[in-house]
Amino acid sequence: MALPGVKAATTGADLRGQKYGPFRSRRDETGLARDKVRYIGDPVAALAAVDEETALEAIELIKIEYEELPAVFDAEEAMQEGAPLIHEEYERNICAYRNFNFGDVEEGFNSSFHVREDHFFSQGLSHAVLEPRAALAHSDSSGKLTLWTGTQSPYGVRQDLSLALGLPASKIRVIKPFVGGGFGGKGDLMPHEVAASLLAMKARQPVKISLTREEEISITRLRNPMSISVKTGVSKEGVILAQYVKCVANGGAYASTSVMLTYNSGLTCLIPYRISNFKYDGYMIYTNRAVSGAMRGHGANQPRFAVECQLDMIAEDIGMDPAELRLRNATQKGDTSINGLVFNSCELSRAIQEVTKVSGWEEKRGRKDINRGIGIACGGFVCGARGGSHTASACFIQVNEEGGVVLSTGSSDIGQGSETTLAQIVAEELGLSPSDVTVISGDTETTPIDPGTFSSRVTFYAGNAALQAAREVKRSLAEMAAKFMEATAEDIEFRDHKVFVKYAPDKTIAFKNLAQMAISFGQGRSIIGKGQWAPQNTQFPDKITRYGNVSGAYSFAAQVAEVEVDTETGEVKLIKVTIADDCGRVINILGAEGQAEGSVSMGQGHALLENILFGDRGQIMNPSFLEYKIPTALDMADVSFLEVGSPDPLGPYGAKEIGEGLIISTVPAIINAIYDAVGVRVTELPARPEKILEGLRKR
Amino acid sequence: MALPGVKAATTGADLRGQKYGPFRSRRDETGLARDKVRYIGDPVAALAAVDEETALEAIELIKIEYEELPAVFDAEEAMQEGAPLIHEEYERNICAYRNFNFGDVEEGFNSSFHVREDHFFSQGLSHAVLEPRAALAHSDSSGKLTLWTGTQSPYGVRQDLSLALGLPASKIRVIKPFVGGGFGGKGDLMPHEVAASLLAMKARQPVKISLTREEEISITRLRNPMSISVKTGVSKEGVILAQYVKCVANGGAYASTSVMLTYNSGLTCLIPYRISNFKYDGYMIYTNRAVSGAMRGHGANQPRFAVECQLDMIAEDIGMDPAELRLRNATQKGDTSINGLVFNSCELSRAIQEVTKVSGWEEKRGRKDINRGIGIACGGFVCGARGGSHTASACFIQVNEEGGVVLSTGSSDIGQGSETTLAQIVAEELGLSPSDVTVISGDTETTPIDPGTFSSRVTFYAGNAALQAAREVKRSLAEMAAKFMEATAEDIEFRDHKVFVKYAPDKTIAFKNLAQMAISFGQGRSIIGKGQWAPQNTQFPDKITRYGNVSGAYSFAAQVAEVEVDTETGEVKLIKVTIADDCGRVINILGAEGQAEGSVSMGQGHALLENILFGDRGQIMNPSFLEYKIPTALDMADVSFLEVGSPDPLGPYGAKEIGEGLIISTVPAIINAIYDAVGVRVTELPARPEKILEGLRKR
Repeated sequence: MALPGVKAATTGADLRGQKYGPFRSRRDETGLARDKVRYIGDPVAALAAVDEETALEAIELIKIEYEELPAVFDAEEAMQEGAPLIHEEYERNICAYRNFNFGDVEEGFNSSFHVREDHFFSQGLSHAVLEPRAALAHSDSSGKLTLWTGTQSPYGVRQDLSLALGLPASKIRVIKPFVGGGFGGKGDLMPHEVAASLLAMKARQPVKISLTREEEISITRLRNPMSISVKTGVSKEGVILAQYVKCVANGGAYASTSVMLTYNSGLTCLIPYRISNFKYDGYMIYTNRAVSGAMRGHGANQPRFAVECQLDMIAEDIGMDPAELRLRNATQKGDTSINGLVFNSCELSRAIQEVTKVSGWEEKRGRKDINRGIGIACGGFVCGARGGSHTASACFIQVNEEGGVVLSTGSSDIGQGSETTLAQIVAEELGLSPSDVTVISGDTETTPIDPGTFSSRVTFYAGNAALQAAREVKRSLAEMAAKFMEATAEDIEFRDHKVFVKYAPDKTIAFKNLAQMAISFGQGRSIIGKGQWAPQNTQFPDKITRYGNVSGAYSFAAQVAEVEVDTETGEVKLIKVTIADDCGRVINILGAEGQAEGSVSMGQGHALLENILFGDRGQIMNPSFLEYKIPTALDMADVSFLEVGSPDPLGPYGAKEIGEGLIISTVPAIINAIYDAVGVRVTELPARPEKILEGLRKR
Repeated sequence: MALPGVKAATTGADLRGQKYGPFRSRRDETGLARDKVRYIGDPVAALAAVDEETALEAIELIKIEYEELPAVFDAEEAMQEGAPLIHEEYERNICAYRNFNFGDVEEGFNSSFHVREDHFFSQGLSHAVLEPRAALAHSDSSGKLTLWTGTQSPYGVRQDLSLALGLPASKIRVIKPFVGGGFGGKGDLMPHEVAASLLAMKARQPVKISLTREEEISITRLRNPMSISVKTGVSKEGVILAQYVKCVANGGAYASTSVMLTYNSGLTCLIPYRISNFKYDGYMIYTNRAVSGAMRGHGANQPRFAVECQLDMIAEDIGMDPAELRLRNATQKGDTSINGLVFNSCELSRAIQEVTKVSGWEEKRGRKDINRGIGIACGGFVCGARGGSHTASACFIQVNEEGGVVLSTGSSDIGQGSETTLAQIVAEELGLSPSDVTVISGDTETTPIDPGTFSSRVTFYAGNAALQAAREVKRSLAEMAAKFMEATAEDIEFRDHKVFVKYAPDKTIAFKNLAQMAISFGQGRSIIGKGQWAPQNTQFPDKITRYGNVSGAYSFAAQVAEVEVDTETGEVKLIKVTIADDCGRVINILGAEGQAEGSVSMGQGHALLENILFGDRGQIMNPSFLEYKIPTALDMADVSFLEVGSPDPLGPYGAKEIGEGLIISTVPAIINAIYDAVGVRVTELPARPEKILEGLRKR
């Protein structure tokens, strides 16, 4: 503070609130460390100055004395009795534990024709969003705090910021500008958001903090490193009779969304296939490393990689085509899974049939003359699992006097294009073009409650809310039109920017004229609508058995990857990925294809390239894009996207999710293709050249 | 543009739209003059530069060649055949003409005991808002234009800006920040708003224009100078048998809200008193002077001043107490006026009785021993007259998970405190405190349609919309509470931040807990409500007869002013004003008293002090607070405010208007008091010392 130009400085001692975190039962964060620093990167102090140079100079002047504590970095070690405790109240550092036990898994194994058990490891990953996080805070003269921040969940950030600062939520406004990518990592309240808020309140001036790439990778969120054991028993015909999955996730220093992760890892094992006896143990373990949290496919990708790889091993063991094995176990429409998931729509069988047909599966598989291989995998995901304090999505719609429509939604477009999809839904209902709909979103004060963008919920929840509001507006306008056109409201139809009377197609009014007339007609009225939606067929899973239908619908996908392996360098090139996806009815085909391509690129990074490396003190060793490599456009495979979905009864116009479900099966499809190409089975990700070469040597 | 630092320059030639103006039938403005400059001050060019100094330097470099045209400045002259035409399409420069003819006015005069005709003149006034107008425009890369501007009508500004620029309204967003006073003058789209928008679109950078005080007074809006003739006939008992009023308003170079003004001047003559034979001719005349427009009491103040002064003359003529004369003619609850106004509530008689009692009318009137006098006047006003393209007010309400409530309204608080009143209405309905309600207002994209703040409509219209939305929210919450409390929704009551079960006062839930439970209970839901309201008992007045109930309710007031006149200097000191007001039920007593005090201060300026002086070329001669004097705190009279209203059946909680109705009778009460003090009758405003001295000399 003595350095000229420094406007405010703060530490955890300035916090007037309590611990926060995205799950009520695991609130363990303070933003700025108070008594204990739990990993290298845990923020302890922040300051604001007139410019960056002064701020950096002032930071050098801060002296911190640390008392060194014993630490533990490996999840298995951290679970041992006597290991140093990261949070004193969590014995053996077990942050979260979830177990399932449906049917009789021992009986299942006993009656199996073939049983095998395998171990897998999925590495730590960065979301690697191209736009680093930034937050701008301003506290006005009334004490009202406004935070502009690149988040997936303005309402969630507001709630946690309220806890952290001890300020009522009504005194905080969170505004989400355009966000350049989130992938699950921008759902939690982050320390720089707390720091910017504290500094703005102290300085009484706006304070902005932008993270560097190094900070982005080191001190935000990672995909959990996870070790997975899978034991599966099948009949002679390849029917899965029993499965036991055990996951141990390294969560780093704070819980984030670990409870959901631990539940999801078990849950998502029961989506793609019919399994009548299933046991699951899932652990999320605290360690003195950077924090893990949600990332695209939250908790599903790691066990899916393990199970789908093992299914290929089993297929080989029993001499069956891996696609055929999957087809024999595929979930069908109308099924209720053993843990209570209700599948009102499911086209997985069709997906497997289409994807093998189109990819040339039969011809390409098992060729020994070239180092090319082909692999298949399946997956499925929720369309918004039951959440916490904000469950439903809400929206408002207003029609302007010149026929333009404003949709106000709390949901957050984080680059996935949800605003386009919502505009399409409203436009479709009102017979307009999407460009006629202005979407306002992600402001806790002017847009209505929405939990945020996670769990693949936006199109399903916010889309249904928008549809409901659009229908309310349509009813109002139809009543008006009926008066002008001497018809009944039920006979009014909306299309091509006009309203028509059914059975009398010559009678029309332009939508914009109808809007103008409706607003000034008679006593005058406003054309407004509201919608709020959550599926009525879901419940929280039972606290003990974990039984319960947690989502209103489920997506399904099958994909086939083709790779070429350079047997001299060990390098794997992803040539082509064919995806058959049941995301219900596709609303925005460009958006769907974009999700498919993005999932392939991200899955490719997961399978082949990316790897967060930890040093001997738990620190991240490769926090830059020079050292942490992600696939670029030059690495991109040819992606073929096949729509195989049928409309879901609950989805808006029958749509389900596509943002997360696809990436889940990309990784095992690639790993299975490597095996098909060169006979090397990779069980620890990523499949880097040195691992392939070692496999080739061993073979 | 050649001067370094200049970013953009524009003239009317850049306009791609059409003429605009607040009334569809009188659109005559372009913002920047195109072919013709109509008064000294009519803007012709604008530029934007990096700083004010550079901008001022660049402005000096602009050369304008004017071809001088014949001009006319006086309204009566402008109406003569052969006078230069300000707008070619308006013969004799008659911008607006409205006439009423109800009953048989000639027959009324013929049967009168006493008839007199008098002439009056009300001067031009500035709104003298303490905050000069400012506008900030920004056009983003998508071509979307955002305008932050201190306006009374964001939706109105958007509509006219859309016309001016030829840009669809959906491509324009208007945001109203806090506004430091409007008084009717900030309802129209202003040239600087057009200029800032054009410059921002050209410069592709934000452009801000702030008016100087000189510009505020010279080139925005004025209260119309008006000459008024009144002929009134009364019976021996003082009952008004016939009245003829003729108003000629000088409108300056553009129409603004002249049609409404011309109608209002006639309309408001028929509010306070029962008149069975009434004739009216109203003219609004174009001249080459600065533009007149709406100002507090729009069109009512000038004829009211005339009529209320003449009533005092008549009372003297027939030897009757002026208060008694008014009492004998006062409108009563249940009346329908001869032009169709329906008075569902009216306490004018009580107002006259109370105000005379409390002010000591009997004792103080007619004292000849001191130069003190006392005067009375009455008035009445609409609560939002039927408007144009946006008639209803709309709002949205959302309850947050922590029990805070957000009210989103399109209505504009311009310093009158309407946001407080709306928060009170919502809080009252939900059993909360106003501080629990956050009000978001005046943004065409995030807050729903509202015509704006004019015609004293906000509490009546937006208040009812807020009440409707609050009741919708209350129903949702009551249904939830009923489930938790095992009661029926009808038996749930909201008060003291809690909900109760009627007949079982021990059963309670805190409001904030109910909100939280409701939002996450069962399948989860959002607690949102919407409201849209316009009175159902109004109609546009008939196009020929002008018959029709234009407002859902009417306010009434009687006030008594006491003055002391210095017979040596001619100076009039306003000592005390006692106001008895029927604004229905008062919602915000501080706000109501503020309106009373503000009306007295502004009326005092109108009666005694303020006067826009025009030069021989129509230019304003006194465009600064050095030369244009407004009353200050030191000039303030003692104001006594008496509530005499009873709840109106349509008003929210029974409230009517108070923003405009009061000032209407302040001016004649003061002028009548001067006559009572020293026997000088002022018929031309303002009653400056020289006029008093001249009157004293003549007497």
